[in-house]
Amino acid sequence: MSVYSIPVRVYYEDTDAGGVVYYANYLRFMERARTEWLRHLGFEQDELSLREGVVFAVRSASIEFIKAARFNEQLQVTVELVKYGKASVNFEQQIQRNNELICSGEIRLACVDAESFKPKAIPAAIMEKFRIANGQL
Amino acid sequence: MSVYSIPVRVYYEDTDAGGVVYYANYLRFMERARTEWLRHLGFEQDELSLREGVVFAVRSASIEFIKAARFNEQLQVTVELVKYGKASVNFEQQIQRNNELICSGEIRLACVDAESFKPKAIPAAIMEKFRIANGQL
Amino acid sequence: MSVYSIPVRVYYEDTDAGGVVYYANYLRFMERARTEWLRHLGFEQDELSLREGVVFAVRSASIEFIKAARFNEQLQVTVELVKYGKASVNFEQQIQRNNELICSGEIRLACVDAESFKPKAIPAAIMEKFRIANGQL
Amino acid sequence: MSVYSIPVRVYYEDTDAGGVVYYANYLRFMERARTEWLRHLGFEQDELSLREGVVFAVRSASIEFIKAARFNEQLQVTVELVKYGKASVNFEQQIQRNNELICSGEIRLACVDAESFKPKAIPAAIMEKFRIANGQL
Repeated sequence: MSVYSIPVRVYYEDTDAGGVVYYANYLRFMERARTEWLRHLGFEQDELSLREGVVFAVRSASIEFIKAARFNEQLQVTVELVKYGKASVNFEQQIQRNNELICSGEIRLACVDAESFKPKAIPAAIMEKFRIANGQL
Repeated sequence: MSVYSIPVRVYYEDTDAGGVVYYANYLRFMERARTEWLRHLGFEQDELSLREGVVFAVRSASIEFIKAARFNEQLQVTVELVKYGKASVNFEQQIQRNNELICSGEIRLACVDAESFKPKAIPAAIMEKFRIANGQL
Repeated sequence: MSVYSIPVRVYYEDTDAGGVVYYANYLRFMERARTEWLRHLGFEQDELSLREGVVFAVRSASIEFIKAARFNEQLQVTVELVKYGKASVNFEQQIQRNNELICSGEIRLACVDAESFKPKAIPAAIMEKFRIANGQL
Repeated sequence: MSVYSIPVRVYYEDTDAGGVVYYANYLRFMERARTEWLRHLGFEQDELSLREGVVFAVRSASIEFIKAARFNEQLQVTVELVKYGKASVNFEQQIQRNNELICSGEIRLACVDAESFKPKAIPAAIMEKFRIANGQL
């Protein structure tokens, strides 16, 4: 079974004066990967927001920072759907350098109304894809 | 004549692996100072957007990066109104460490419709304050 | 017992197109508060790095994003030391708007060598202050 | 004659509550493109810093913000070497969406000592490549 991943290059903007990637920026890399995974399933988030009136908002993130990535390194960021409900979805994500684990995280997102940020059911077409991604079909 | 300024502390998030403030982040510091200057004149930008339907968008920025600021330093960021028209306003800004010049910039903003981003007249109440700030009253 | 906190204003740079603070930026706010708390105890991190050869690196962060903060809002960010060992320290942090909880987190930092990023004992002078902050003296 | 360019996708992290890319972030995109251009010429900046003891620091940036780019859009960022001296180099850069101009900039960088940030001659091997890139061979 293959896990979806994207490459991310570390630029100066991502690092800090400690010489390493600033800790909060790993969460940016993880979001880029979730966005590309959703696109890969056929969904553009700007269209979801306009047409369906929903956005996915991060509800919790539990991150382990294991090694320090540095300027100019090439990383891989994985996305794995582990659970989903009517209005929420859980991912496991890893950031790797070659095959070394840099950072891992469990991220829970809620599907919410784009204006009020109140929970809203995940659109059916997306649910269908989650079911497939989750190996239930 | 006094120039409006705010203090800005340099945190890890502002620096890069070169050990200094990342160049684009000086523009963040400058915007914080413009926001506080506008608040100091009595205007909250979230209210301006909601009530008047306008936002100020940066049209051009010409920045000289003179010295490098480093992690944990305390900076001062100045704002000086130098010119304004019906729908635009020009500022000169400096970033200083003690009295040493770190960075200087000329910034031009346009007043635009909050949705379409098309030029829109600066609200009269703001114009009035600009006139005072510019020493014309 | 009072909990240490700092005010943080939400600027445009902190928000995203969803109209709210970008999730990773709450971790920036939390780090600012930890930095100010350490300064408040008498330690400047740039000096710690130069004189003692140590930096504090985040090892894990577990964050709950409860409400969405928006542009121009004034937040309070708290820091509470909950546990510390020879080379690590745990904090509980909250981000509040008025008295409403926006975001909460448990953060574990390791004291590491500034070059190699390998664990290193927390300097004695800091340990002493941690003991006091933790109410053990 | 072809101009070097890289694609940049706009993620949530790049936007602000105005619904558009935050102005300072266009400077990040421009730096990514300069980094990739240098890599394309055969130079890795982390190696340059370690082996030659030099980094390129931005000395001035003059940017026109013409249109607003939005979340999820695909942009192209160009780099064109326009002038170089013993210790400095000037670029013209554009950010485009399809063939529409979003943002343009003139950027001057200095080659500086990686520690002191004082001007230092551009290494000969890089000069050679600049000469070629500038069409002088």
